Amino acid sequence: MSDTWIEEIHKNEMRFGFRYTEKLFSGQSEFQKVEVVDTPCLGRVLLNDGLFMVSDKDEFAYHDMITHVPLYTHPNPKNVLVIGGGDGGTAREVLRHKSVEKCTMVEIDAMVVDACKEFIPITAQVFSHPKLDLKIDDGVKFVAETNEKFDVIIVDSTDPIGPATPLFGIEFYQNVFKCLSDDGIVVSQGESAFYEPDIQASLLKIKSEVFPMTSLYNFANMTYPGGFWSFTFASKKYHPIKNFDTERVKEDDLKFKYYNSSIHIGAFALPQFMKDRLNPYIKGFEC
Amino acid sequence: MSDTWIEEIHKNEMRFGFRYTEKLFSGQSEFQKVEVVDTPCLGRVLLNDGLFMVSDKDEFAYHDMITHVPLYTHPNPKNVLVIGGGDGGTAREVLRHKSVEKCTMVEIDAMVVDACKEFIPITAQVFSHPKLDLKIDDGVKFVAETNEKFDVIIVDSTDPIGPATPLFGIEFYQNVFKCLSDDGIVVSQGESAFYEPDIQASLLKIKSEVFPMTSLYNFANMTYPGGFWSFTFASKKYHPIKNFDTERVKEDDLKFKYYNSSIHIGAFALPQFMKDRLNPYIKGFEC
Repeated sequence: MSDTWIEEIHKNEMRFGFRYTEKLFSGQSEFQKVEVVDTPCLGRVLLNDGLFMVSDKDEFAYHDMITHVPLYTHPNPKNVLVIGGGDGGTAREVLRHKSVEKCTMVEIDAMVVDACKEFIPITAQVFSHPKLDLKIDDGVKFVAETNEKFDVIIVDSTDPIGPATPLFGIEFYQNVFKCLSDDGIVVSQGESAFYEPDIQASLLKIKSEVFPMTSLYNFANMTYPGGFWSFTFASKKYHPIKNFDTERVKEDDLKFKYYNSSIHIGAFALPQFMKDRLNPYIKGFEC
Repeated sequence: MSDTWIEEIHKNEMRFGFRYTEKLFSGQSEFQKVEVVDTPCLGRVLLNDGLFMVSDKDEFAYHDMITHVPLYTHPNPKNVLVIGGGDGGTAREVLRHKSVEKCTMVEIDAMVVDACKEFIPITAQVFSHPKLDLKIDDGVKFVAETNEKFDVIIVDSTDPIGPATPLFGIEFYQNVFKCLSDDGIVVSQGESAFYEPDIQASLLKIKSEVFPMTSLYNFANMTYPGGFWSFTFASKKYHPIKNFDTERVKEDDLKFKYYNSSIHIGAFALPQFMKDRLNPYIKGFEC
């Protein structure tokens, strides 16, 4: 067993990493470097451009929280769009909801999908699901051009560098608004309050300029810098706490590993330094 | 500016660290190695035996949450005991509560106190407070021998290696129970659900064998492995949510940076994998 570490360095000030025993895949796509390594700590780990994306051990935290908060806020989500999410974990969770008739997933990078199909089956198992419509395409172009309406849109993107940059702009969210049904909800990967406070605030600001109701909720995983991460939430009609039906979660009994009714509500409780910074962009919440 | 990193390695599987520009202090006490470094990411950082303890930038998260959750659960905390907490941050927060008449702090290692007095004034400022009774002594011995009764006891300890090991045993908590008033509360550093699940469970188990009401709450900081950390909570009488008076927080208006009424409640919402593991040791909570 070799003693080799793979590390992510944040602004040349903080770094963290995991010992890996094998590099299973390494490729350079049109968009980014894609790697899969095997680690004692996390099992298999996907990296895009050297940044940790998803791991066997903790993927449940991210995928539960990006998916079930909006899908249990909307009372009857039938048509769901996932932008990005190339590992498949978000689409997998979307398709556990019995109300969902179709999940469209628009991932820009086929190499991510192919690498996960081969090496990360825990998330990529979804790619054979009959209700999944996988498109290898640009999500920005897709929301600009489609005439379809979605009940929930999930923006499961990397950080605003490389191919994901336009996903952090206002034009994109204006098109997301257009593609959402009249009671639609959008949730997006929302960055770290400790390590990327400016990007976090700017993303919520953009949503607050487009949507009547916006907030942010936190969760924790093992693979992102600092572990303490967020999703931004924007909605045309439904409030994620006031309109949340805990009975539906109980009846479905989907045996989640991270999500439950308490954490759905508790995750919106923000530490004061986040409230102070984000308050101008939080709309329709008593914050 | 040198390019030198100080790192914490977890079980030879995960590591994380910060670039430091200067080593301000390094000493070997009777109990442990004590270091203070200056970093661009976190400001000044205290390390005991190579483990990150506290930093200028994020100390507010830990100290707010270890202190204000029990002190705002107890309706009138007058006499408070802090075991450990050598940097002073916990005692500093305790003494912001106007009901508190005395805060006794029992820290085993004078070198930690002295290093913080010299290099980490943000927390060590408390050491001149007239209501603070600082004892350089063994906290285990102190709770075994004292006849004093405390309304709240805070166990602000390192991990169960080195001098802190007995603070994770049942005899210690039997003595803590004895030293608490009839409506007393104890909160302890509770480890990481991701990286130390076994220690976390065993500490909560011990408390559940001694106290009628036990649970655990989470918070996030930047200096501990994974960032997602917990405190265990045990109480003789008061429930931290049912008996929590949000009006008192509002009236005091102490301008916290992490703590607020929402996060006091939300922090007790546990992800499902924590509930599943800790459920046998959670008492008096609908979990």
